[in-house]
Amino acid sequence: MSIIVLRLGHRFARDKRLSTHVALTSRAFGADKIVFDVQDSDVKDSIEAVCESWGGGFQVEYIKNWKTFVKGFSGLKIHLTMYGLNLNGVLPEIRKLKGDKLIIIGGQKVPSEVYGMVDYNVAVGGQPHSEVAALAVFLDRLQDGVELDKDFKGRNRIIPQARGKKVVSDE
Amino acid sequence: MSIIVLRLGHRFARDKRLSTHVALTSRAFGADKIVFDVQDSDVKDSIEAVCESWGGGFQVEYIKNWKTFVKGFSGLKIHLTMYGLNLNGVLPEIRKLKGDKLIIIGGQKVPSEVYGMVDYNVAVGGQPHSEVAALAVFLDRLQDGVELDKDFKGRNRIIPQARGKKVVSDE
Repeated sequence: MSIIVLRLGHRFARDKRLSTHVALTSRAFGADKIVFDVQDSDVKDSIEAVCESWGGGFQVEYIKNWKTFVKGFSGLKIHLTMYGLNLNGVLPEIRKLKGDKLIIIGGQKVPSEVYGMVDYNVAVGGQPHSEVAALAVFLDRLQDGVELDKDFKGRNRIIPQARGKKVVSDE
Repeated sequence: MSIIVLRLGHRFARDKRLSTHVALTSRAFGADKIVFDVQDSDVKDSIEAVCESWGGGFQVEYIKNWKTFVKGFSGLKIHLTMYGLNLNGVLPEIRKLKGDKLIIIGGQKVPSEVYGMVDYNVAVGGQPHSEVAALAVFLDRLQDGVELDKDFKGRNRIIPQARGKKVVSDE
């Protein structure tokens, strides 16, 4: 199963840090790629710097037309939105469906066509919160938590500690 | 069990939106209160506007001295940090411990004393990602997902839909 995250509607001035958090969360929670429909090289550069040091083969891509991209995706398409069906209800069904997954997350304003173009509109709770939170919990539930044990084989590796910090870096 | 989130080291210019996401995530994932050690009324105002419309009795508080606050907290203290013990390993132990929980999350730079002042330093994966993601997944795992079914009894309520949006508002 390959997991791709599509981040719609990144806004330059406002969203740099949030989009970076979305991308890092995608990577850390086992997605293979993030796709943006807005090109912001600051975001791409910071993600690629993390990949370079911490490993994992995660990719950042830009697309010109998100509609063409979504239509052309052959696996399961899931849009995370507070207006959708509660994750607790639909998760068992989604987990049974094998194959590639496209997870779509928007910012403040998502084009209304998205709702009709996907297989599932899923609410990680029907309350306003954060696309970063929604994405993380969805990916964690989808993979039953095993993504947190993934070995990224990076140059930097953390040795987990009960107290304090320990990082090993290959030179 | 009451859950309090302590957000350390909010920075005015950079962190407004991220701190707002942290606070909204705390609320949506069942925490009772968020505590900041830096006073930013923009963040407080946006959270309180959400509480007013969407319900749930969530509180936002400022404290002057985080050390005094952490020392004085009588329940279980958990610091979320990528350097800690993997959530997958420590979760069963933490879930057995009843009573109030204090979840501490920092920004870029966390004072090193924090590591020694808590009962657990927990890594929601040992990879760089987002404090919003870490908090959401931790709260979701801690409560076994039931927080997503919470009835916030707000003036605004979403009626979950397979496609499209439906919000009911009491006037």
